[in-house]
Amino acid sequence: MASGHIRSVLVTGSNRGIGLQLVKCFLEKPNPPQVVFATCRDPEGARAQELRHLASKHPNLAILQLETTDEASVKAAAKKVEARLGGAGLNVVINNAGVMPPCTLESATAKDMLDVYTINLVGPMLVTKELLPLLKKAAHGSNQKGMSCGKAAIINMSTVLGSIEKTPEHYFAFPVVSYRCSKAALNMLTKCQSMGYKDDGILCTAVHPGWVKTELGSEQADLTVEESVSGIMKVLCNLSEKQHGVLVTWEGNVLPW
Amino acid sequence: MASGHIRSVLVTGSNRGIGLQLVKCFLEKPNPPQVVFATCRDPEGARAQELRHLASKHPNLAILQLETTDEASVKAAAKKVEARLGGAGLNVVINNAGVMPPCTLESATAKDMLDVYTINLVGPMLVTKELLPLLKKAAHGSNQKGMSCGKAAIINMSTVLGSIEKTPEHYFAFPVVSYRCSKAALNMLTKCQSMGYKDDGILCTAVHPGWVKTELGSEQADLTVEESVSGIMKVLCNLSEKQHGVLVTWEGNVLPW
Repeated sequence: MASGHIRSVLVTGSNRGIGLQLVKCFLEKPNPPQVVFATCRDPEGARAQELRHLASKHPNLAILQLETTDEASVKAAAKKVEARLGGAGLNVVINNAGVMPPCTLESATAKDMLDVYTINLVGPMLVTKELLPLLKKAAHGSNQKGMSCGKAAIINMSTVLGSIEKTPEHYFAFPVVSYRCSKAALNMLTKCQSMGYKDDGILCTAVHPGWVKTELGSEQADLTVEESVSGIMKVLCNLSEKQHGVLVTWEGNVLPW
Repeated sequence: MASGHIRSVLVTGSNRGIGLQLVKCFLEKPNPPQVVFATCRDPEGARAQELRHLASKHPNLAILQLETTDEASVKAAAKKVEARLGGAGLNVVINNAGVMPPCTLESATAKDMLDVYTINLVGPMLVTKELLPLLKKAAHGSNQKGMSCGKAAIINMSTVLGSIEKTPEHYFAFPVVSYRCSKAALNMLTKCQSMGYKDDGILCTAVHPGWVKTELGSEQADLTVEESVSGIMKVLCNLSEKQHGVLVTWEGNVLPW
């Protein structure tokens, strides 16, 4: 089922890597959103230069300061999103901001585990919670049947490394225990959101972007960021209630939990 | 495959509920362990009275103060365990301490999520990490083939509520989002431990105790603590490499992630 037009989308962690490429792809669509909210921690900083350059060319790009793990920052950003939407709802939230520091069973400390959980699980939870009224507004105001990104959707950027079932396949290649645990929890949060927001018609899907040549994924990765995000964009446009509460790859294949 | 004799076991959160009953059952075995370490946060407090009463009758019961989330406390307890074992290894660690506060998608705060993750995920991780040398000693010193609790084992008390796959069956009956996320992460930690400690011959299994009439499970639960723990004791005695890196119920059935 086609998605219908996505009129508004918000992407966290959008100053680099997959987040930045998602913003570019939304802006370059033949029928782009009326507004693309690109959030990052430091929109004025050197690392957001490319995002600012994009904004100078695209009036429909709104850069927002957002520290996803800080409730006050999330509330402030949500207010700005609401104001810019001028009474309309928000179609899509993409919880993309995340970290993957090295962490083995031997090296892991309490602080390691909590820091990563805060960014990879608590951040997406807070962002979604604060934007929920705007997602509901989009869903309730839509006359589309079923679920889609053109109606309302929460997309949590997850990973095959968060699949417990798949762990034996790549445990020793990726020694990132804090990341794995936080992403298994994010998969659970996605499933909980899919249950809690089903009656509102809000699609909730976890996406594995592949192993991508970014700062997080390193130069050894399989995919360029363009290849990964090109796949993700196709997947997003075709998501329906079939992928509600499911973990799908950048190619649209379902992964086990 | 029979477990062989369990000469030593450590149970966290052992002053009440499932933990206390596990301690009782180990002590009452026809061939009990030479030492049962029962840990709790406040061994001198009113809530550890029953544990102290047991210790007055069972010289093989060692009560230890342990705050599972505090690295210094865990290190101190591990030193006491080592001293008491007098050169022997530790056969079994049962990470039982945990909490399940009410928490919905609507009510969840960053603090709620982090507090529960600290107790339910970080605690078991720290306890296991500090006791690992003693578990390895037991495993390496054993002449048993395969894996078993009589050799060396890490048992993480998990729950069907941490099964992402099973979530739709009981989402609305148990509004405990912080608990679900922490236990999905604990299941991932169990799988990581099963990979990391496989070559050492240490069995790593997650156990769902059923819905039990305890302070955590409430009076509405299906099972008495005696019924649940009687099942768990049978399961523990029969665990083998077949359940390595697996989530099993108190009846020995495998649950999906």
